Amino acid sequence: MTTTLDDTLSALADPTRRAILARLAQGEATVTELARPFDMTMPAVTKHLKVLERAGLITRSREAQTRPCRLAPGPLQEVANWVDEYRPYWEARFDRLDEYLREVQDKQEQRPPRRGRKEQRNGRDR
Amino acid sequence: MTTTLDDTLSALADPTRRAILARLAQGEATVTELARPFDMTMPAVTKHLKVLERAGLITRSREAQTRPCRLAPGPLQEVANWVDEYRPYWEARFDRLDEYLREVQDKQEQRPPRRGRKEQRNGRDR
Repeated sequence: MTTTLDDTLSALADPTRRAILARLAQGEATVTELARPFDMTMPAVTKHLKVLERAGLITRSREAQTRPCRLAPGPLQEVANWVDEYRPYWEARFDRLDEYLREVQDKQEQRPPRRGRKEQRNGRDR
Repeated sequence: MTTTLDDTLSALADPTRRAILARLAQGEATVTELARPFDMTMPAVTKHLKVLERAGLITRSREAQTRPCRLAPGPLQEVANWVDEYRPYWEARFDRLDEYLREVQDKQEQRPPRRGRKEQRNGRDR
């Protein structure tokens, strides 16, 4: 089955569907088992499962009558690969923050702490 | 600004919006500059930018009149953190595939190839 990143991301953009995946990460489950903790009707769960199945995020057994669902991690790996391209950008952000914090610390170490200034100012400002 | 994984994922579930982010990863750009390679009208680009801005994936400068857009990688990091929880599952899948391929290879090395057996059995079963 070929699915696109569009299908995967829009299937994942729902808290119930992400919770269903988290549950299936613990092991396969039937629709009844999935419906219970979410306090949802069977048709509502079935609808979410169809979206997840279309996106290739779960597979459903054809063998047993209960057709247990299982996590299919392939599309999640594609999301990880895609988003990892941007890792340098958020890491750079933290590097800049680190640099800023080091600068602030250096300044504080160079200067003796001011005495009583803050209290004075607090009294004056409104 | 607090945004949810829902907002982020649904903003990302569109190829044009992902392409806009890829462009902004090269450096900030104005709406006009973004509209050009995508062969889109300005209102269409503006609409996509609003979705990205609401999801916290871009920021727009308040200074210049052209209000250039810039990539904001924070929500992408949240997606990476979320999806990384599933890394053991796709890695396990590759481990199993590795194991299976090793088994097949071992069997091929241990046994001489069968002659004609498969054809015989195919004739008998059903």
